[in-house]
Order: sequence, then C-alpha cells, then structure tokens
Amino acid sequence: MTDLDLTMDPAALTVALCNIESVSGTEGVLADAVEDALRSSAHLSLDRDGDTVVARTQLGRAERVVIAGHLDTVPLGDNLPCRVEDGRIHGCGSTDMKSGVAVALRLAAHLPEPNRDVTYVFYDNEEVEAEKNGLGRVSRNHSEWLAGDFAVLMEPTNATVEGGCQGSLRADVLLRGHRAHSARSWMGTNAVHAAGEVLARLASYQPAEVDIDGLVYREGLNAVGISGGVAGNVIPDECRITVNYRFAPSKSEDEAAEVVRQALDGFEVEISDSAPGAMPGLSHPAAAAFVAMVGREPQPKFGWTDVARFSALGVPAVNYGPGDPSVAHQREEYCDIAPILECEQKMVAWLTASR
Amino acid sequence: MTDLDLTMDPAALTVALCNIESVSGTEGVLADAVEDALRSSAHLSLDRDGDTVVARTQLGRAERVVIAGHLDTVPLGDNLPCRVEDGRIHGCGSTDMKSGVAVALRLAAHLPEPNRDVTYVFYDNEEVEAEKNGLGRVSRNHSEWLAGDFAVLMEPTNATVEGGCQGSLRADVLLRGHRAHSARSWMGTNAVHAAGEVLARLASYQPAEVDIDGLVYREGLNAVGISGGVAGNVIPDECRITVNYRFAPSKSEDEAAEVVRQALDGFEVEISDSAPGAMPGLSHPAAAAFVAMVGREPQPKFGWTDVARFSALGVPAVNYGPGDPSVAHQREEYCDIAPILECEQKMVAWLTASR
Repeated sequence: MTDLDLTMDPAALTVALCNIESVSGTEGVLADAVEDALRSSAHLSLDRDGDTVVARTQLGRAERVVIAGHLDTVPLGDNLPCRVEDGRIHGCGSTDMKSGVAVALRLAAHLPEPNRDVTYVFYDNEEVEAEKNGLGRVSRNHSEWLAGDFAVLMEPTNATVEGGCQGSLRADVLLRGHRAHSARSWMGTNAVHAAGEVLARLASYQPAEVDIDGLVYREGLNAVGISGGVAGNVIPDECRITVNYRFAPSKSEDEAAEVVRQALDGFEVEISDSAPGAMPGLSHPAAAAFVAMVGREPQPKFGWTDVARFSALGVPAVNYGPGDPSVAHQREEYCDIAPILECEQKMVAWLTASR
Repeated sequence: MTDLDLTMDPAALTVALCNIESVSGTEGVLADAVEDALRSSAHLSLDRDGDTVVARTQLGRAERVVIAGHLDTVPLGDNLPCRVEDGRIHGCGSTDMKSGVAVALRLAAHLPEPNRDVTYVFYDNEEVEAEKNGLGRVSRNHSEWLAGDFAVLMEPTNATVEGGCQGSLRADVLLRGHRAHSARSWMGTNAVHAAGEVLARLASYQPAEVDIDGLVYREGLNAVGISGGVAGNVIPDECRITVNYRFAPSKSEDEAAEVVRQALDGFEVEISDSAPGAMPGLSHPAAAAFVAMVGREPQPKFGWTDVARFSALGVPAVNYGPGDPSVAHQREEYCDIAPILECEQKMVAWLTASR
C-alpha cells in the first residue's frame, strides 16, 4: 500500500499524486491510496466501485455539492517523476488533473463540517473511451452516490470557471487496397498511399467557432492515430486512420457524426465512440453564485469533461481547477503552484462561509 | 517432430510444406522436419546453422551446383491450410516458395548420383531484414558450405529463367509535431497530418524502367507501413512511414539511397536496410547453358533474391522456380501444379543427362 499524507500542502500533495503513475486502466494503486488516506476521516462515509472512490459528508445540510476529479492520466511522455522548479510542478498529470485532485482530497480530509454537504468523487478511466469512464459506471451502478444540487469538476481551467464542454466523437477511416509483393508493386493497390488524401483533407479542414451565451467554442477535427502495413516487402492492403472531432455543445452527436461524414465524403467512415457536450448553463442560480465567488470572467471549456455526465443526470456543473488546460496531454505538462493554493483557498472559503 | 514424406508427388509435398506454418522467425518446426526427412538419405551429408539446413552430395564430380530455397513466408493472410482446386494450390507460401522447396527436396532425396555434385540449401528469414537472412548468416559462418560453380535459386519465376534481381532499400520517414490535448488542437502540431504530403509524393512518384541486356527492370517506391498516435485524445507528435524502394541492378545502394532522399526531399529520411541487386549475367557459360536447357525466353527478376548473395560470393546464379511471382505476398497466393511437375522434370533431366 502506497501512503498518501493529506497533511502535506497541496503542492507537495500534487507531486506525491503525480508520482503514483496512473495511466488509464492502471489506477488501482492510486485508488487504493486515496481510499486508505480518507478512511481515517470519521466525518466521511466511503464507497468504492472498481477504481472509483466516493466519500460523503452526511450532515443533513440543505444543499449538497459534488466535487469530482479523475485519477487517471494519458500515457507518460518520459515526464515522471515530477520536477519542481521556480514555483512550477512539471510532470504527467500535474495539470490534468492531479492538482485538482490534491485540492479536493485536502478539502475532504480537513473540512469536517462544511456549510453544504459534500460528495467527493475520485474516479478512473476518464482519458479513454467513454464506455470505460468510471463516473459513467458509477452513474449506472449507484446513481444515488452522485446526487447533488450542483457539481464542481476540478479539471484544469486556470482557476477560472469554464462553462459547459465540447462534445467528442471518434471515427475510424478505413482505406482498402490489394496486397502484392513490393517488388511488383504495380500488381497491388497501396492502401497507405490512399491515406494521403484523407490526411490532406484533415490538414486543410477549417473547424467552426460557435458562440453560445458569449462563450466561443472552437471545434477541431484531427487524426489522432494511423496504422497500416503487413511486412517490409508487401504492398499494404489496409490502412486505418482514427479521427477525433471536438464539437460545440449546441451540436448533437448525430449532427457531429454528419459533419465528419461530410468532411470525409467518399471514404469508408465508422463512428466508434462519441460523447455529447454540455451547454454552459451559467444562468443556473447555483452556477451563477459559484462564478460570482470565483470572481473571474467565465470561459468556454474546449475539452470534453464529465460536466456533460452531470448535466445528463440533471446536476448543474462547472469546471474549475488550478491547472492550465493548454498544456494538458503534452510531454511538457506542468502546473503552477500559485493557482493550486488559490483554488484551495477559494473552495475552503466557499465551503465554510456562513450561509 | 512433424513428419515430411518425400515420396509424395511434388504437388502433395508443396501442400504439406505450406501447412507447416513458417512465417519468418518461426521456421524452426519446418527446418526440423526438413532435416529429419533428409537424414535417411545416405548419399547426403547434412549441416545445420540455426534454421538453415544444408545437404550435400560428395561424389567428386567435376562441377558443383547449388540449389537453394527459403523456408519462411510472409505473415498469413487468413490463407492456410491450403486448398487444392482445379490443378491449383491456394495458400500462403504456395508460390513463394514452398513449391520450389518441394522440388528441391525431392531432387535431394531421389537423385543419389547426379551428374554434378549438388548442394541443397533450405534457409530461414528471407522475407525480412537482410541482416537476418539465413543464407547471409551461413555465408558469414560457413562460406565453404555454399561453394559451387553455379547456383539455381528456386524462387517463383513461372518456370522460366529470371536473370539478376533488383536491389531493395528500406527507409523510415519520420514526421515530428508537438503533442496537445485534441480538444485544443491549435496548441499542437499534428505529425500524422504532416504525413499526407509524403504519401501524396509516393502516390504520384513515377518509377524508372531500366533496360539491361534486353531485360527491362521496373522499379518501385512504396510505403509499406505507417504508424503514429499517442492516445485517442492527443494530437500525435510522431508519425513514421516505412518506405521500400526496389531498384534496378545497375544502381548501387548509395545511388538508390540518393534517389529516395531526392524523392522525399525536405523530410527526415533514415535508411534502415538495403541490399544490392545483381546484374543478370546470363552470358556466363553455366547460366547460358541452363537457359538453353529450360528452353524459354529469360526475363528480368523484379524482386530482390539471394542471387545477389551468390553473385557477391562469386557464384553465378539464376532464379528458376514453378511459382508465379505476381501472386507472391498476396492473400490470394496460389501455385499451379503443372509448372511444379515441369520444373521437377527439367531439373531431373538436367542433373541426370550424361555429360
């Protein structure tokens, strides 16, 4: 069992969390450590489903807020263990989103009597296919664990509120050819060569920008993977390109699929996975009050986040966390320490102010 | 131990050989079976190096001929076990080159007193990188096993003599970008998109046709593999395209590398593997005599074959085998039975005629 000491300051805790590797599908060790660290807090009731840990206060308050963060990260980019330099933590997961998890863990451990009941959710498999998502699994298996009046997802937002989220759709483009010995290439049809036109279309694609309630959502259509080839002396008869489309929350999944099919018209396109966005919904009273507390101009959330899942459960939700989303998923991922402290202070103030 | 019965007719033996899977690197079972089947022939002395089996007559004849074939195949294309229909054997390895191996094995077993001494070579790893090639390994470890006045490589040639062989060069083209979360794709640079221009160049490349001694060698420059991608939500920072260039035997390996670099000028190109071609050399007396015995118009050999290796050892060599090279490495690979019987008859006549 790996020990997590929740009396560390939130920056040190972020480093400790990052240094427990938890690429999607391998979060078990970290989930165990989180569960173990929270077990000594008598004010929390604990539940677990797979590698998702849920901790709740049961104070009978008039309002319940859900504070959530995912435990997993994208694959390492040769960027662990963490390095701390000039007030900045460098390493896989630092921004997305172990800094947010660190804040949430400290709130859970150190606020025995918050002014609202709080449900803390630490979940698995956010960075992979929607069907594996731990929050989705809990919403199917134990939806009562996620009940609440409002939710704060501590995804990276540069310590401002980011409203809604874009949807995400994945599709495979399959190019087919005909094998031949590469010394007699004119006898075959090269499926990898055929991928060139698909990539040219993607490279020149002009993504839309969609204004919703003054927040401008920038879309994107990108190849995120390609593979093809049989052997070094064979003309390949198959090539597969995986495409990811990020779409404004005003589009449905069906509309998004149609955009992809149109952009790749003439090619064999198979939609493999999609998740709808969430409208910003900042006019909801709970969301508006939270925005006022944070005291900064709200922004659109470009990434897909589980605010969409809360939105589908009827729980208004916003993104708010210390990380910088623009460095997420990069080898050079980092998180500044100052916004980690700021986020913790604001969340503590919000959860302890007299109401 | 898998048994091989060399009293079967050469078509049935081809089927039996095909049904012992032997994708490059996994030839052990087949090499064991070949060694075991030849052990009972008292007129042969046997040697083995890795998965290469060499069997020699030691009759003190004035001339020694080497008859060689590789035991390995390209990866299966869902095309085993073999199917025999209307005088045609369908299955992986049928044309390239277990039909040739079948003929050579029967010659080895059933001609105890050929008019020339014969060295039979059954070798591994021909279908992969040149450095793994079993014939190359034997030429380094035991070059005396390959000594001879003339060599016949029983690669598929439609039962005619194919002279020389083209060279083969492999290169990797590496595209580099910058990772980013795919929801903020404008923060990154997509290395897979950058591959589009490389593929467009390859698709439109006009390969040369080179006339040598009346044989016209058709070149080819092709992507044989592509890979890139980090995760479904990450803009990829690397994409690798493997390219195979087949070049006329009049070009050196350095000249071939220069052609590839020019065709892909502006991209990062790394030559990973190359093997020179072999000039046809049909004017050599032993080769000319063999061509006369076969009695058909000689053709150029487009594929790289180990005639190049014999050529480098100073042993004049030709390609002659029953398979059709144009269906090699295809899922639909097949070999007609008639040329298998014809090749065996001609080889028997050649090795038993009074001299």
